[in-house]
Amino acid sequence: MSRFTRPDWISAQRVQLDSRLALADAVGPQHGVSAQELADLLPNLRSVHAELGRRRASGELGFYQLPGQDITPVLEAANWVRDGFDNFLLVGIGGSSLGPKAAHAALRSPLYNLLSREERGGPRLFLLENIDPVTVSAVLRHLDPARTCVNVVSKSGGTAETAANYLVAREWLEKSVQNPREHLIATTDPANGDLRPLAEREGWRTLPIPPDVGGRFSQLAAVGLLPAAVCGIDIAELLAGAHDMDLRCATPDLDTNPAYRLAALHYLADTRHGKPMAVMMPYADGLRSLADWFVQLWAESLGKERDLSGKIVHTGQTPLPALGASDQHSQVQLFVEGPNDKLITFLRVEHFAEAVQIPSLHGDVGSLAYLGGATLERLLNVEQAATEAVLRERQRPTLRLTVPELNPFAMGQLFFLFEVMTAFAGGLYGINAFDQPGVEHGKRLTYGAFGRAGYPDLMGGGGK
Amino acid sequence: MSRFTRPDWISAQRVQLDSRLALADAVGPQHGVSAQELADLLPNLRSVHAELGRRRASGELGFYQLPGQDITPVLEAANWVRDGFDNFLLVGIGGSSLGPKAAHAALRSPLYNLLSREERGGPRLFLLENIDPVTVSAVLRHLDPARTCVNVVSKSGGTAETAANYLVAREWLEKSVQNPREHLIATTDPANGDLRPLAEREGWRTLPIPPDVGGRFSQLAAVGLLPAAVCGIDIAELLAGAHDMDLRCATPDLDTNPAYRLAALHYLADTRHGKPMAVMMPYADGLRSLADWFVQLWAESLGKERDLSGKIVHTGQTPLPALGASDQHSQVQLFVEGPNDKLITFLRVEHFAEAVQIPSLHGDVGSLAYLGGATLERLLNVEQAATEAVLRERQRPTLRLTVPELNPFAMGQLFFLFEVMTAFAGGLYGINAFDQPGVEHGKRLTYGAFGRAGYPDLMGGGGK
Repeated sequence: MSRFTRPDWISAQRVQLDSRLALADAVGPQHGVSAQELADLLPNLRSVHAELGRRRASGELGFYQLPGQDITPVLEAANWVRDGFDNFLLVGIGGSSLGPKAAHAALRSPLYNLLSREERGGPRLFLLENIDPVTVSAVLRHLDPARTCVNVVSKSGGTAETAANYLVAREWLEKSVQNPREHLIATTDPANGDLRPLAEREGWRTLPIPPDVGGRFSQLAAVGLLPAAVCGIDIAELLAGAHDMDLRCATPDLDTNPAYRLAALHYLADTRHGKPMAVMMPYADGLRSLADWFVQLWAESLGKERDLSGKIVHTGQTPLPALGASDQHSQVQLFVEGPNDKLITFLRVEHFAEAVQIPSLHGDVGSLAYLGGATLERLLNVEQAATEAVLRERQRPTLRLTVPELNPFAMGQLFFLFEVMTAFAGGLYGINAFDQPGVEHGKRLTYGAFGRAGYPDLMGGGGK
Repeated sequence: MSRFTRPDWISAQRVQLDSRLALADAVGPQHGVSAQELADLLPNLRSVHAELGRRRASGELGFYQLPGQDITPVLEAANWVRDGFDNFLLVGIGGSSLGPKAAHAALRSPLYNLLSREERGGPRLFLLENIDPVTVSAVLRHLDPARTCVNVVSKSGGTAETAANYLVAREWLEKSVQNPREHLIATTDPANGDLRPLAEREGWRTLPIPPDVGGRFSQLAAVGLLPAAVCGIDIAELLAGAHDMDLRCATPDLDTNPAYRLAALHYLADTRHGKPMAVMMPYADGLRSLADWFVQLWAESLGKERDLSGKIVHTGQTPLPALGASDQHSQVQLFVEGPNDKLITFLRVEHFAEAVQIPSLHGDVGSLAYLGGATLERLLNVEQAATEAVLRERQRPTLRLTVPELNPFAMGQLFFLFEVMTAFAGGLYGINAFDQPGVEHGKRLTYGAFGRAGYPDLMGGGGK
């Protein structure tokens, strides 16, 4: 019997939200959200819920469909990579690299690339996710092209940075291997853009990003699933976790829908309680990259300019990544004593995959002896609770998401939770959470400076 | 003749600040700082300058003395590590790991630990900088204790996380090697704390952190110099860069002192122009960790509660790390269209150590062909200029620091520049930039929960 037919297993593995310390009862009415404010939001909330439901049904919001997708093509491609290569080189930027990194960091060894193939459970994973020449040179110099599969990931197929790195990697392949196309996989739109026809003309393997799934909502599409499956992560469990979260997010009831509750509390904290910043602070190294993925999702979806009957309004809370316990020695001083302008979300892992006992040594040394006999897990979680308690004393609102264990089922829940939270928050702000018009002009300026046909050189002094 | 006796070399290698796009002339009086505001700051500025000078002369601000220190003991210790070990394991948190990581990321290969000893130029570098049991297990399982040197770094000698990880690493050493003390180096206060007497009693090697140098200002003390020297970084050039920056920061003249100018512009942006956030956005992978180091420096130094004749004031701009070009596909949409509440500092590298030419391939594919013949360096820097131009059009203030090349001389300048900037900003805000009282209570709560002698268990349900 599969674990997914066992409701007790699922319920024990569910991510839980505790929002009591974000409320007025805990941190006072100036900084905490009141029951009345949540009640006042109900009409708006119901209409956003209905609108999301309508758009979902019409197929506009493709990310909602991803948990139910057929993963056979991804598994087939992953097996081809696992059988044929020692290295998997992902060429992508933004949503095409942040999601894959988040899943990898949470579910594979932090020393993955240093381990033997047997210990790792899959090919090594490298990324070209920026156009830094030092990084690109170092990676290509280190890898053997004959043993490397290059996955070019771009929704539009025309992202400048990904295009540039693809061209460099392509030449690198051509210098050493007979058939570069046998080393290439494209993950891109099924119809649009330049990458799809190029890949099909040359006969590369390809995987689709559904047309109604934007880059930052594509982690549960082939963008994220292929690198995960290549590295031995159980992507069926990832999608099962997302599906389970989808079920929990079907209701507009703020008491049971964790995504809507998170969205409503963030929205009210920002617009009513002077909290223009949202801190995502996991107490687990493996979730630090998830915070970076969340930063893109929250920033790019909600950071918008909007014309409100002639008045220009600028929306969007600024997301801030942090890591416990490390940031207790960096950002927490500011969170505790600086301006009370943040809503902080803790991610806490209840049981880690490894148990590390702190030995009882140096019994005569005061600052060491008291630790003996405890575990690192216990120390980490006590520190999380202590930080939360201190922030509460200072009237600083916090939220706590408890993750029972870091496994694919949990990560699927978290990805989907934050995606629904973001889509719903877009509705509350009354903006389009699925575009990014503010970065288009910068792209045009770059095209112009490089003499791309149809784009004037507006910066001057350009050229290659 | 040493390069440091050649003024032309030095001047060509100096980090340059361009602040024009942070001024009212460029982005308007609402969001930009005016000449009048800078002029009005002069009396305050002169008194902060005089006060820093007084404290420096009295030996209170030890970080100012670090460029002139005798590095012989560090080099000696580094040679001992390089000769005797394959792995260097740094156990430290906050300032004890952020600085070492920043120098390493900027000046060593991004694939350092994957390279051969010859390619690397030194032992492999690992860190235990958090108490995550998965990370700690993975690192200790991977390393051979017989070939590993453990550097325990703690100013106070009593940091709980460092103490816990030290105990775990100590037991790991004891299980496999005859004389654990021959694998240990302590970097700590020369007199205070529990680590110093323990190390001396057992006969470990030790290096000092001067008593008047706090954790986040200790990168140019042995904290940062030892791991740098172990990995083959020229620490004499690092200090030469810091010394050169010190010379440039000797004047209170805002037109020539880049640290004071940065501090003044950030202070005015925060207090007069509604910019509670400071973004540090390098366009170079190697400087991304420097942004994390800056986050601690700025957040922990300036995030303070202050009693202003009976009125409680909360100070501190929230620092935000970013990375170009990657974050053009993540945070930049928010920076461009969201609330105009940030001052953004770009770090731009003029010449990278590697040249990567983008080949002319696929001449018939529109979104690829225009890139052929350019370099990645050029593309990266054109994108930086394009992002800056878009932000300017939207009246968003930015600063640009240009780094001629990523070398130890440049990194020394940057570390020192940001340290002086932070110390000076502390003076402008009228707060103590060198303490962190807000995190002490959380430490006491943790001690109490673990039953440390003298600390009551205030959280309840505690114990190990």
